[in-house]
Amino acid sequence: MNKPDIFNNIRVVLCQTSHPGNIGSAARAMKTMGLRHLYLVNPLHFPDAQATSLATGAADLLESATVCSSLPEALTGCVLAIGMSARKRQISHELVNVREAASRAVTIAAHQPIALVFGTEMSGLSNAELDCCQLLAMIPANPEYTSLNLAAAVQVMSYEIRMAAPDGASTVSATPTELATNEALEGFYAHLEDTLIKIGYLNPGAPKKLSERIRRIYARARLEKEEVNLLRGILTLSVTPKKHTKY
Amino acid sequence: MNKPDIFNNIRVVLCQTSHPGNIGSAARAMKTMGLRHLYLVNPLHFPDAQATSLATGAADLLESATVCSSLPEALTGCVLAIGMSARKRQISHELVNVREAASRAVTIAAHQPIALVFGTEMSGLSNAELDCCQLLAMIPANPEYTSLNLAAAVQVMSYEIRMAAPDGASTVSATPTELATNEALEGFYAHLEDTLIKIGYLNPGAPKKLSERIRRIYARARLEKEEVNLLRGILTLSVTPKKHTKY
Repeated sequence: MNKPDIFNNIRVVLCQTSHPGNIGSAARAMKTMGLRHLYLVNPLHFPDAQATSLATGAADLLESATVCSSLPEALTGCVLAIGMSARKRQISHELVNVREAASRAVTIAAHQPIALVFGTEMSGLSNAELDCCQLLAMIPANPEYTSLNLAAAVQVMSYEIRMAAPDGASTVSATPTELATNEALEGFYAHLEDTLIKIGYLNPGAPKKLSERIRRIYARARLEKEEVNLLRGILTLSVTPKKHTKY
Repeated sequence: MNKPDIFNNIRVVLCQTSHPGNIGSAARAMKTMGLRHLYLVNPLHFPDAQATSLATGAADLLESATVCSSLPEALTGCVLAIGMSARKRQISHELVNVREAASRAVTIAAHQPIALVFGTEMSGLSNAELDCCQLLAMIPANPEYTSLNLAAAVQVMSYEIRMAAPDGASTVSATPTELATNEALEGFYAHLEDTLIKIGYLNPGAPKKLSERIRRIYARARLEKEEVNLLRGILTLSVTPKKHTKY
């Protein structure tokens, strides 16, 4: 099953959210990570202009959000509900960090719907709400200040879901550049050494150690083909500066 | 070195932030993950009541924030600047995802200061700002909607830093080499540009593009302090070769 299908099986449930702005910011956070199914259990204000404003380009998630009157209603059809917890609780739920939780969520969402459940801004999930969940997930935080904003918590969890999803969501690749071949590099190093000798930097009798140090610098840079040409152009001018230069 | 010490070597730099609320939310995001050094480069409004309001319990980070008039000033003393990028750029900076970037950041921050650099809400980091960075980090996102809120991006990056930091003092790291500071690098770049103009390689009227390409080569190499000295020695001889050389 591919990534869009997995994401289609994941819903974010916000319980009794007080500030409509947080609903909008949470929608934006979800959409940046590819999640799109938002469920709202008894939101204090919804729909609301502030929610729409903070959602920016994710207002479509608010329009398609499902408003429910109870958490069980929001969990209809789900085979796993993961409750987010900011603190350790005196309960017997299994508690894992969000990375582990995301990994399990994605595995199951490949086949069946699951829910990520967030409590109120002030006190998180109630015990009754936790009883509707099968797993608790915690975002590791500074023990002296654990107060993540609701939308920030949604952002971190959604991010971990994207990172856990297959199909390389977690990998980043830049447009491939053409790296220099080994021969091109050796040609450059020889040109460089010759130049350093000509300008009196290297002693041709014992250049080894210094040459090695310089080679290491360029080895770490992983030079592209074009960059080798550029550097060799500099070397050529170091020995014979342009005749016509006015500088 | 333990986690608090690593965090003491990590600064978050926000460039030209437009909305003071985002500065406050970013401070809150940082503090939840244990980061505390905030640098602001030319913030549009700061200090500001909205920043303080959104920081909630992290207002102390705003009070101790360092306001700078340029990015190089904010990077003083840092040996690695990681620029956050929301999109793939047509440049040859090394680009990794935030998880990999956090891992590298933490390794270096165990010994020397590093910076996480965030651009404006609307357009991210400028090319000139990127030139001050040695590594680009990207948060994997929904290709159809990559628009993370600034504070959300700070939250994800800070979270990855916390996840990457070792928990105890039991970790072993290789003997660290002393990396060049930002000031040393800038001194080298200025020397290099001056030399390239003198040998007729760069046109002082329009050196920009070529200088940038050369800077990126050395940015990728993550130069050590000693290597900068070595390279500057070569530059000096490129302009005035040793009189007594026989070669």
